[in-house]
Amino acid sequence: MEIKVDISRAKSSAVTKEHGVTPADLKAIEPLVLAAHKRMQTDRKNKTYGFYDLYKDKATLSAVKKMARSFKNKGIDNLVVLGIGGSALGITTLFTALKSPYHNLLSKEERNGIPKLFVMDNVDPATFAEMMRICTPENSLYNVISKSGGTAETLSQFLIVLEELKNSLGGDALKDHLVVTMSPPVKGAKASPLQHFQKKYDLPVFHIPLNVGGRFSVFTPVGLFPAAIMGMDVDTLFKGCRAMDKRTSKASLMDNPAYLRAAIHYILCFNKNKSMSVMLPYSDKLCDVSDWYRQIWAESLGKIVPATDEIAQYHVGMTPIKALGVTDQHSQLQLYLEGPNDKLLTVLEETKFDTKLTIPEGDKAVKSAAYLSGKTMNQLMAAERKATVDSLRECDRPVIQVKFPKVNEETIAQFLYMLEVETAMAGHLFGIDPFDQPAVELIKNFTRKNMGA
Amino acid sequence: MEIKVDISRAKSSAVTKEHGVTPADLKAIEPLVLAAHKRMQTDRKNKTYGFYDLYKDKATLSAVKKMARSFKNKGIDNLVVLGIGGSALGITTLFTALKSPYHNLLSKEERNGIPKLFVMDNVDPATFAEMMRICTPENSLYNVISKSGGTAETLSQFLIVLEELKNSLGGDALKDHLVVTMSPPVKGAKASPLQHFQKKYDLPVFHIPLNVGGRFSVFTPVGLFPAAIMGMDVDTLFKGCRAMDKRTSKASLMDNPAYLRAAIHYILCFNKNKSMSVMLPYSDKLCDVSDWYRQIWAESLGKIVPATDEIAQYHVGMTPIKALGVTDQHSQLQLYLEGPNDKLLTVLEETKFDTKLTIPEGDKAVKSAAYLSGKTMNQLMAAERKATVDSLRECDRPVIQVKFPKVNEETIAQFLYMLEVETAMAGHLFGIDPFDQPAVELIKNFTRKNMGA
Repeated sequence: MEIKVDISRAKSSAVTKEHGVTPADLKAIEPLVLAAHKRMQTDRKNKTYGFYDLYKDKATLSAVKKMARSFKNKGIDNLVVLGIGGSALGITTLFTALKSPYHNLLSKEERNGIPKLFVMDNVDPATFAEMMRICTPENSLYNVISKSGGTAETLSQFLIVLEELKNSLGGDALKDHLVVTMSPPVKGAKASPLQHFQKKYDLPVFHIPLNVGGRFSVFTPVGLFPAAIMGMDVDTLFKGCRAMDKRTSKASLMDNPAYLRAAIHYILCFNKNKSMSVMLPYSDKLCDVSDWYRQIWAESLGKIVPATDEIAQYHVGMTPIKALGVTDQHSQLQLYLEGPNDKLLTVLEETKFDTKLTIPEGDKAVKSAAYLSGKTMNQLMAAERKATVDSLRECDRPVIQVKFPKVNEETIAQFLYMLEVETAMAGHLFGIDPFDQPAVELIKNFTRKNMGA
Repeated sequence: MEIKVDISRAKSSAVTKEHGVTPADLKAIEPLVLAAHKRMQTDRKNKTYGFYDLYKDKATLSAVKKMARSFKNKGIDNLVVLGIGGSALGITTLFTALKSPYHNLLSKEERNGIPKLFVMDNVDPATFAEMMRICTPENSLYNVISKSGGTAETLSQFLIVLEELKNSLGGDALKDHLVVTMSPPVKGAKASPLQHFQKKYDLPVFHIPLNVGGRFSVFTPVGLFPAAIMGMDVDTLFKGCRAMDKRTSKASLMDNPAYLRAAIHYILCFNKNKSMSVMLPYSDKLCDVSDWYRQIWAESLGKIVPATDEIAQYHVGMTPIKALGVTDQHSQLQLYLEGPNDKLLTVLEETKFDTKLTIPEGDKAVKSAAYLSGKTMNQLMAAERKATVDSLRECDRPVIQVKFPKVNEETIAQFLYMLEVETAMAGHLFGIDPFDQPAVELIKNFTRKNMGA
């Protein structure tokens, strides 16, 4: 089962050449893409960037599944992920895509014994205190995730949880309620706070490979372990990665969907004034994919291009925007259609929903509602999506369509993997390093200062 | 208790004059603002626009409270709002701001008998079917909200619910499980589908004043009735509106926070290349305010300015963006700090959270975590907010700060009311009608065609 990328509505044959890509645009960028491809392949072989081959790591997959099984009969009814940014967005995306929208409201039986999920990706004291109140220590498992092992937000959460667990269950019980996911210790380097606590209390641990950044870590134990606990099929996630790797490792512009999407974004941003990239899924299951995309795209590509002898430094980065169909037709579409033509949209289609829901006839006397009668909500969703895509063309706005035959482990993994490769390629085209985040350090330093460090 | 608007970090004294407003900018715009003020006051007096005076409507407030009371002992455990866009966003915003973040997970006792809330603002068949499965008809109240009475999405939901209620409870029980909120019937005009069904089944009903648009309707029964059912203090919502009306009806640029915010947005958009307006609350309670803002701002201001004899038509509209602190420091801030300088940010502060949460000492051996030890999560949140605001200045990015002494009915109403007036003023400055949404009709027509109408 394969996702399909359809760029026809982003072409100058669908919209005008001021707002769509022309054959000449694509021809001009092809050599840049192929040159970047070579550098990316070298980085992959050198293992400079590790995200490409994570799905081949069967040992980690086994370890994740084994650890998840070991918690099966320990009475865990809440999985609480302590993490922020890349440590939170992967599991949130998978959870929304693959579980019931009301999972946490279901009874334990309806959930087949699978725990509720709480992803704590903020330090709002009211929210955190309320989570602590409703997740009783005895039946909660905390997965604390921080690559650096010292993220202020996650560490604060962890210290609060650690104290609570020690007080209510005692130190010996910690290893039944805490799993740590972090970087492996490096010889000679000082232990991070999390490394220290993990060792001190002998807590179960997963390591994040050093050559995989937080926002590229969904297919490491960062995403995989909570996914396995939540009853997702992690093997099939890997299968989806493998299938997409076949497509996104091709040395080709037109046959490689990741490269093609990166190139179109680059062309429309640099040459046709598109400063925003909107992801608009027509599917509740896919709504948090947009949040995941929002991070990988913004944090990887929002950068300063350093000065050269000839050119002063300048700023790049399209702003990624999360949207949702049909909901946003009654919120954002007025702007997307009539506002400035400054956006490239990606419309996501869930072709086959899990359920079919028929709209009853209602009352024949109500002629203005007759067009709905006997149709399905599925048809309405599809009709609205098509209407939006057609309206966007009518208003000369470029659109890429991505079609999910179904939303499941296989297709969601394909999509996330494609976006990873696309982001890496876009970094090369925009001329920046997509794997660092220098500006975030500025805030961290101010924060430490403000906390009196 | 008053919210405070602080524009100091959007001024050229904090950032450079390329990116901040100068005294000369403000002086130049003042006459435009005062002229617009006069037109707005006339529209208010003429009752062309009704949103200003909704808070004076004591009869509606009483009716809302009375109706809410009448459902008190009917065993209602789920309130399901069927609505989209302006019919959904008001109550969603209030719910997030004023109830526990885990309200729906609490037991009936913990909720003090207040129902769970489900806002169905999409037509995803899987989500809707799952809602129908878990909200059993006997203990659910459906509030169907559509100003036009014919919104395709809401009508489809309503027809499905109506059939289910008839089948499982019988026609006589309908009025105990359905409340309709819609436009009043107009003499001589054809009844809308909702008007037809309301009459046919004699369902309890609220009317939305004809001179109030969907996105300005939070202080009509659209927002008030679900708010009252959810145990919110609707009297205090009105009190907040009244307090803000005092401030936002002043004929002044500098002393009217709504006009000042509108003017700064206009200046930075038109003269300093800011095409996006980011709302960044440092408060989980305020996170859906950004979604509400996203609608009122985009749908009101994303427009075509018609051609005149001298100037061809052109497109206006800053794109509103929803963000959340501190979470987005690990997602969007890299872009906001180092990407193109194309955003004006509004940072929201919740000064006093409901809870204080202390970060325990942990382990003295871990020196790199010592700066957190004994501090509160509240301090961390404040330190991060300040760090972000300071980093933004460091990178020459303009920021408006809005401070909520507490988040409660009074302050949230003040903020929403201010944003309404601000949007109206911005419409005047940008030269468009903020109260229509012509492009949405285009999608509606395509949708009807696609459904075979």
